[in-house]
Amino acid sequence: MTVIAAGGRPTGAAIAPADDDATWMRLALEAARRAGLAGEPPIGACLVRDGAVVATASNCVVSSLDITAHAEVSVIREACRRERTLELAGCTLYSTVEPCPMCFAASHYARIGRIVFGASLADFDELTGSELTGGRATGGGPRLDGGCLREESLALLRRWAGGGGR
Amino acid sequence: MTVIAAGGRPTGAAIAPADDDATWMRLALEAARRAGLAGEPPIGACLVRDGAVVATASNCVVSSLDITAHAEVSVIREACRRERTLELAGCTLYSTVEPCPMCFAASHYARIGRIVFGASLADFDELTGSELTGGRATGGGPRLDGGCLREESLALLRRWAGGGGR
Repeated sequence: MTVIAAGGRPTGAAIAPADDDATWMRLALEAARRAGLAGEPPIGACLVRDGAVVATASNCVVSSLDITAHAEVSVIREACRRERTLELAGCTLYSTVEPCPMCFAASHYARIGRIVFGASLADFDELTGSELTGGRATGGGPRLDGGCLREESLALLRRWAGGGGR
Repeated sequence: MTVIAAGGRPTGAAIAPADDDATWMRLALEAARRAGLAGEPPIGACLVRDGAVVATASNCVVSSLDITAHAEVSVIREACRRERTLELAGCTLYSTVEPCPMCFAASHYARIGRIVFGASLADFDELTGSELTGGRATGGGPRLDGGCLREESLALLRRWAGGGGR
C-alpha cells in the first residue's frame, strides 16, 4: 500500500512512480558518463526513496582496484554508509545496465524493492540471461523493470567498446 | 595443465591439491571464529595460491555497515588490494560456507579457479540451492567442492544462531 502524506508525496512507498523513472535514470546515466570519461566502464546507478536521491555511484572497478565495485554494489555501499543502515527497504535502484547476479543478490540482501534498468546484460556482458533467470525464478528479491532509456545506455557502452573497453 | 617447477611445487596451478584442503579450511574457520567473537556472522574465507595464503577475511557486514561484506567478497577485495590486480587466476577460495550468488559471481569475475566450502547454504541461509544451481548450470565460473570440515563450520553457525544471530 502506498501512503500519501498531506503534501501529496508518497511516504514509505516501496516503489517509485513509474512516470518518474526516466528522470532518475538520467541521473544514473550522468554517473555512467562520468565513469566513462574517467576510464571506467560507463555504467551508473542511482538509489531513490520517496522522491529523493539517496545516493548515486558508477562502476569504479579500475580506480578502486576492486573487482566487486560495480555501479549497483557501489551505490548500495554508499547508501548504507550515508544512512548508517544495512536495509534499504523502500528504495528503487536505477541502473543503466541490468544487474548481474552479484548486484542482484546485493540488492536482495539490502531489501531493495524495485530495480529499473536500461540496457540488458545480454546486450554486452559475458553472463547470459538464463544464468540470471535461473537465480530469480524461485526466490523473491527486487522487482525488475528493464528498457528504461536503453538506447542512451547502449550508446555509452558502444562508444566505450569502440574505444578499447571490454 | 599443471606445471611443476624444479622445486617440486606446482606453479600456475589453477587448483590447490585436494589433500591440503583441510589445512586451508582451518584458516578460514579461524577467521570465522574471530568474526563470531566480534559479533559478526561466524563465516570466514581464505585465498590460497601455489601453496601460500594470499589473504584471509571474515564476514564484516555489521562492523563495516556494508551489506556486501560477506567473507568471500571481503577476501577477494583484500587480495586485489594487496596484489594490485583485478585477476586472481590460480587461486583457490576456501569458505566455511557455500558462497551465495553474490560471492559466487564475484569469484567468477576475479577468475578464481576453484571454491572449497564447508557448510551448505541450504543448511541455514534464506537463499535456496535451486537459486544457486540455476546460476551455475549454464555458465562457467569456479569449480565447487563442498563439505570440507562442514561440521566445524555448522557448529559455529549453530552456536551463533543459538545466541541470537540469524
